[in-house]
Amino acid sequence: MNDRTTTASAEPGDDVTVAGWAHEIRDLGGIAFLIVRDKTGKIQVKFEKDAMDDELVETGTEVARESVVSVTGAVEEEERAPTGVEIVPDSVEVIAPADPELPLDPSGKVDAELPTRLDNRTLDLRREEAKAIFEIRAEVLRSAREAFRELGSTEITTPKIVATGTEGGTELFPITYFGQEAFMNQSPQLFKQLMVGSGLERVFEIGPIFRAEEHNTPRHLNEATSIDFESAFIDHEEAMDACEQVVRAAYEGVAANCADQLDTLGYDDFEVPDEAFPRLTYEEAIERINATGELDTQLVWGDDLPTEGEKALGTDVGGHYFVTDWPSEIKPFYIKDYDDETELSTGFDLMAPNMELVSGGQREHRYDQLVEGFEAQGLDPEAFDYYTKMFRYGMPPHAGWAIGGERLVMTMLDLPNIREAVLFPRDRQRLSP
Amino acid sequence: MNDRTTTASAEPGDDVTVAGWAHEIRDLGGIAFLIVRDKTGKIQVKFEKDAMDDELVETGTEVARESVVSVTGAVEEEERAPTGVEIVPDSVEVIAPADPELPLDPSGKVDAELPTRLDNRTLDLRREEAKAIFEIRAEVLRSAREAFRELGSTEITTPKIVATGTEGGTELFPITYFGQEAFMNQSPQLFKQLMVGSGLERVFEIGPIFRAEEHNTPRHLNEATSIDFESAFIDHEEAMDACEQVVRAAYEGVAANCADQLDTLGYDDFEVPDEAFPRLTYEEAIERINATGELDTQLVWGDDLPTEGEKALGTDVGGHYFVTDWPSEIKPFYIKDYDDETELSTGFDLMAPNMELVSGGQREHRYDQLVEGFEAQGLDPEAFDYYTKMFRYGMPPHAGWAIGGERLVMTMLDLPNIREAVLFPRDRQRLSP
Repeated sequence: MNDRTTTASAEPGDDVTVAGWAHEIRDLGGIAFLIVRDKTGKIQVKFEKDAMDDELVETGTEVARESVVSVTGAVEEEERAPTGVEIVPDSVEVIAPADPELPLDPSGKVDAELPTRLDNRTLDLRREEAKAIFEIRAEVLRSAREAFRELGSTEITTPKIVATGTEGGTELFPITYFGQEAFMNQSPQLFKQLMVGSGLERVFEIGPIFRAEEHNTPRHLNEATSIDFESAFIDHEEAMDACEQVVRAAYEGVAANCADQLDTLGYDDFEVPDEAFPRLTYEEAIERINATGELDTQLVWGDDLPTEGEKALGTDVGGHYFVTDWPSEIKPFYIKDYDDETELSTGFDLMAPNMELVSGGQREHRYDQLVEGFEAQGLDPEAFDYYTKMFRYGMPPHAGWAIGGERLVMTMLDLPNIREAVLFPRDRQRLSP
Repeated sequence: MNDRTTTASAEPGDDVTVAGWAHEIRDLGGIAFLIVRDKTGKIQVKFEKDAMDDELVETGTEVARESVVSVTGAVEEEERAPTGVEIVPDSVEVIAPADPELPLDPSGKVDAELPTRLDNRTLDLRREEAKAIFEIRAEVLRSAREAFRELGSTEITTPKIVATGTEGGTELFPITYFGQEAFMNQSPQLFKQLMVGSGLERVFEIGPIFRAEEHNTPRHLNEATSIDFESAFIDHEEAMDACEQVVRAAYEGVAANCADQLDTLGYDDFEVPDEAFPRLTYEEAIERINATGELDTQLVWGDDLPTEGEKALGTDVGGHYFVTDWPSEIKPFYIKDYDDETELSTGFDLMAPNMELVSGGQREHRYDQLVEGFEAQGLDPEAFDYYTKMFRYGMPPHAGWAIGGERLVMTMLDLPNIREAVLFPRDRQRLSP
């Protein structure tokens, strides 16, 4: 197909071969139009029934919608055509005929429910809107990686098959690994920490994570994309700076490189966050939530923030914001407490703004305290020896975070369901396609 | 640590704080040196015992090697110092003391066996050589992605938890997924094909694959990084063009951006392949292997190429080369045969040059033939209905390939074992760290 011209690049005066899908057929009697769609757009093919070979007209006007066709002919200017040009065909070939009955309508004229769309992603992503989301998603990943490199971090890939989970045995999918019990990793947490103690010092990874959570909500997935960062010799404040830089870079990349996709999705006011994200302490957060009056009961120090509270505060703040200085007991043991106030954790969350987008903090880098943390959590430090022992050989202070990749796309585009941001979602009900 | 200066950027006349690892201590009597190492290099810290505070001298010269230290002082020119400068310290802090007994020596003065190094990757990657490999690996991934974007492909992420494997039930790791049987995906093959039938048309993915192969050799892994490409409206020849472009881009990226790392690894003659990769047919390949006389028996048409044969041919050709036009029966059923010679497959391999690096081909896009292929393979087409049914709704001709990510790094750097190219390898014996 070396001689294929895309529909967007067909210019009047050219003789071209375009190939794509039969998007629509309009038969006006003596004249008929076949609209051919490819990745770059659509083009009209004109059939003048009396002036053209019958077989040619028949092939081009009776082809089933969504069949793959190849059209060779002359491109001519035509003011009334949707793109200002049309092809007068010399030949039409049906490369792959489609069944006349389609499980969903890629023209988008007939709405389909999400499960039907997910069952038929191939057809669903022939719709401009669905395609636009995944082109934006690709740009989010590209610009995040570029920001990571600007931050001087090295890309790593860590194993997804592991002997132990980051936070113990719950929420892990078990695997049979050559007769041994193993698990699919729920987070690169331990491995990225092992790497900040190496000569790399500062690392990132974008990869899959697996959580056997029983949640089945519009914002949870059992397989997700985690955007992980970890760096030696920084504290939680600097980690938040880096986080803000990466999130902002993703917005900037999309604003700069996805104008067409944003237009397709109807975002004429897509905005890159222009102010520094406010950093609220947990204490300020519960006070502000209580002040909204949205909750039935007042939150007190030590409570986790309920979903309704997060939503009320997000609406109040109106944009991305960090929550810092959490009670230590709410945060995982591998997050460091303040040295001078051990009931306070250096853990932080980034809210976007009605949903948790990022979780991070400075890490416990002291061997004795780390091992105590495992024990306090009811975990056997021996099982994590491959990890903890490295803390005996010069583990620098370090901090980091993880962004939920799908949540970043979801919150950026205000999608109603996180499944809109993943091609083939995995949840309790869905294991296929 | 906002005020930290890297060792490489410490300039004479500056007052700095550097932080890193105690690489070495040299005590010459009245004078002693502490060498501090960080990601950017090393710097000498000078202790004049009689002229300095005893506690300062003691902290700086009795610290255990590989402890994390922070040194504040004045940078001075010193011709005899390894980098031409040294720090005259005002203060030294031991941030994280290391055990005096280290499981391996990051200075590289004492050799360690690979298993010991893999058990202690944190320490292993404090060695310049190991660190250099993974910095090069990161550049390989970066430049491959850039080449994919130049090719107009969209990055996708496909699920790693799947209901069925690409090639049936063998070589799959089983998972328990909410009470259902599932598997870890051995290849994004089926999903990337589903996406070339969508509006994206051309896609790539760099992600983990999982193979329960019992092989335990220096060039097999049970968890690896696959660099996948798939495009609508191209044939196998164009797929090979794209493959060559991506592999070459990886070499070019490393040549352009990893001069220091190549130097560390002793490659003063690193070469980007400058000629187009030869394309040998399978028939030519077996003839040339037979002509080398390296095999005990002559190969005949229909034989798969034995490892020894691949090595002999690789030595004969002397660089990357494709093998094309395989007997259909050797290649997977989803690879298309030539229309005019159905005993010949459009499948191809790229050899680099003594090892298979890439496998690809034009795919079967015709529904009936695809379903027949499943049946001929002894697979139940019903189990793959989520995949095959999309071929009834206009699946364009398409082709693609997958590069083994670790093999790309391994062959590029001539590493003796593929485990040198992955941080935390997974094989039959190794599940941790």
